[in-house]
Amino acid sequence: MLAGRVRDANGPWIAERLGELGIDVTQILLVGDRPDQMASALRFLAASGVDLVVTSGGLGPTADDLTAAVVADMTGRPLELDEHMEKVVGDIIAKFADRLRWDADALAEANRKQALVPRGATAIRPAGTAPGLAVPPGDGFAPTVLVLPGPPREVRAMWDDALASGPVRAVLERTAPFAETHLRLFGVPESDIAATLRTVGEHTDLGPLEITTCLRDFTLEVDLRRRPDDAAALAAHDAVVAEIDARHGRAVFSRTGETIDEIVFRLLQGRTIATAESCTGGLLAGRLTAPAGASGHVQGGIVSYSNEAKEHLLGVGHDLLEAHGAVSPEAVHAMAGGALERFGVDVAVAISGVAGPGGGTAEKPVGYVCFSVRTADGREITRDPVLPGERGDVRERSVVLAMHLVRRLLTEG
Amino acid sequence: MLAGRVRDANGPWIAERLGELGIDVTQILLVGDRPDQMASALRFLAASGVDLVVTSGGLGPTADDLTAAVVADMTGRPLELDEHMEKVVGDIIAKFADRLRWDADALAEANRKQALVPRGATAIRPAGTAPGLAVPPGDGFAPTVLVLPGPPREVRAMWDDALASGPVRAVLERTAPFAETHLRLFGVPESDIAATLRTVGEHTDLGPLEITTCLRDFTLEVDLRRRPDDAAALAAHDAVVAEIDARHGRAVFSRTGETIDEIVFRLLQGRTIATAESCTGGLLAGRLTAPAGASGHVQGGIVSYSNEAKEHLLGVGHDLLEAHGAVSPEAVHAMAGGALERFGVDVAVAISGVAGPGGGTAEKPVGYVCFSVRTADGREITRDPVLPGERGDVRERSVVLAMHLVRRLLTEG
Repeated sequence: MLAGRVRDANGPWIAERLGELGIDVTQILLVGDRPDQMASALRFLAASGVDLVVTSGGLGPTADDLTAAVVADMTGRPLELDEHMEKVVGDIIAKFADRLRWDADALAEANRKQALVPRGATAIRPAGTAPGLAVPPGDGFAPTVLVLPGPPREVRAMWDDALASGPVRAVLERTAPFAETHLRLFGVPESDIAATLRTVGEHTDLGPLEITTCLRDFTLEVDLRRRPDDAAALAAHDAVVAEIDARHGRAVFSRTGETIDEIVFRLLQGRTIATAESCTGGLLAGRLTAPAGASGHVQGGIVSYSNEAKEHLLGVGHDLLEAHGAVSPEAVHAMAGGALERFGVDVAVAISGVAGPGGGTAEKPVGYVCFSVRTADGREITRDPVLPGERGDVRERSVVLAMHLVRRLLTEG
Repeated sequence: MLAGRVRDANGPWIAERLGELGIDVTQILLVGDRPDQMASALRFLAASGVDLVVTSGGLGPTADDLTAAVVADMTGRPLELDEHMEKVVGDIIAKFADRLRWDADALAEANRKQALVPRGATAIRPAGTAPGLAVPPGDGFAPTVLVLPGPPREVRAMWDDALASGPVRAVLERTAPFAETHLRLFGVPESDIAATLRTVGEHTDLGPLEITTCLRDFTLEVDLRRRPDDAAALAAHDAVVAEIDARHGRAVFSRTGETIDEIVFRLLQGRTIATAESCTGGLLAGRLTAPAGASGHVQGGIVSYSNEAKEHLLGVGHDLLEAHGAVSPEAVHAMAGGALERFGVDVAVAISGVAGPGGGTAEKPVGYVCFSVRTADGREITRDPVLPGERGDVRERSVVLAMHLVRRLLTEG
């Protein structure tokens, strides 16, 4: 991977999948794409005693993509042309080349390179154009190496085949899946959970339980992981869950790791929804329409960034905007009403706020955001918190908060 | 950092900043948050001969956040309470606690822990609640260590102070910034650039030039980096740029690293814009409104996810939709016209496509997306490509392509 130029979208995902299988992931390394850097990283990992190394990236057509060669060298397995895989890759590439009119010579060269397989390794059918490799230990190099391409979509698509390959199966047979609980909380700071865990630790040994807390997408994720046959770990698990329920029960919205997006999608089945957004500029509509099947309930939305748009497209009264301002509980109430009516939906969500960095006043500072979620049958939730963070934070946090308000209104009703 | 649970948003950013200062970043490590894992990683990096280690994360209030203690131990510098920093952190925390009604005891404990500084190190004023640390070498541990908190926003906010600290300045004085060229291309596959670079390599020695190519946000980034006083590197640089211009000149939209978002923002000064989105569900409007100051030109948008919304909110004719379908050049032309008229803007962008996974037909497969960019004075660009990838890819790629079409119409006009 090109050090410093690429966000690592694969490491955490792979680590999570391996964790579910009972494999303890001890390190994630991002290294430069020079052969010596890669070799040095592999030697470091082998010396730390790991059973399995998963690499991603470095299988592409550019000359600096050398992962397969480095792994072949490290395990003393010469690269050999896999003719079946050459044909598989060739067929895939031919389709691309035809459709996109790419340079055929460059593609043919890439083709040959990508069908080279270390002797004794298993090639994994590509999802893009690059096959993966499952390489058994060899030449004093003890870990099994699973070599995957860089694009996250390909890693995900090839994952099941990779696990089914002989060399990886041999590693998996030596472990058992963890038992896991995935609590998701909204609106609780990490420091409160830390205090809760300290309290539990005063009377219960938490040692045998692996607890990770992580703030992601403004959601506090508390993951509990234990060996399934460990009674002390189970006792610790139950004590932690009981204390979190006692102190933060109202904030727990998922006990299965189900995301707020999945919950809202589920709640919207058989209903229709529309949005009216100002400061979030369409991000809430974008998020609601992200999952396949969203067209079953999302009718649309209006991004009323200007006051004129709020008046003309959502029917918000000019006098109301003059009296209360575009960022006010009154304005979002009217915006949501406009969306209910214009789209003829069951549920409407309106957001208007001061995202910053400019536009804040003493009374309505940067981060002040008003929310209204209304149903066609007359129920409503309104909120107007001051959200922390900079412009991007305020916008993204507003979207997440709006999702939770939709959840609340639809589960209470 | 919690291995496997967190996407590394800091490593690449920090590596890029250091690279600009002439520091060659050789490795990015993500390690678990156990002290022995962290210590092992620090020893590995020291053994590889680096001058500077930057850590992020592990400064939070939870008991597993131990970076400062590990670095103190490694450099033989006992932790001491920095009373000035204790007061700074205390004041910050008091404000949060007051506003958000968090548990004051938990916060006070966090406060004390976060004001502990290894002897001889420089504390860096926090952007959130956790100060950073610049720790000079010590006790046989040769690298300087810069310890930063985990949240990307805080890393960015504290970066200038961190560079100005004595220990980091001492490292920076030993290097000189690289000369860099940042080409940005849209619509060229990485394999074509690879072929172009191979051609140049046949007659010019590219060894002294560092070339990284990276596909990010559907944009091909070609970064050329060289020591400023190296004549051979300059010759290689000029040869590469000339060949890319000759072969892919039309695709080059930036030579300074300026992003498509920055270019469109600049072009929209003194104009107004609105959107009409179907398959992208508001993501284009969300992207246009991301930068501060967007309200100067973005009037708003309509997410017409359903056909009813296309008719009623954008005035697309029922007969037109019947005759050509909602995904057609005719439909987006009418949608853009509706947005021009409804919002009274200078420029309107309409997108309608088959994002998938369902809904594709032989004639209009998944990935078929229609675009219309129109100006109030009658100019227009229409496109209807079949975009590769899955639902999320198609949506995001459509947004980027729309940004480029806006750029093209506004630079040609």
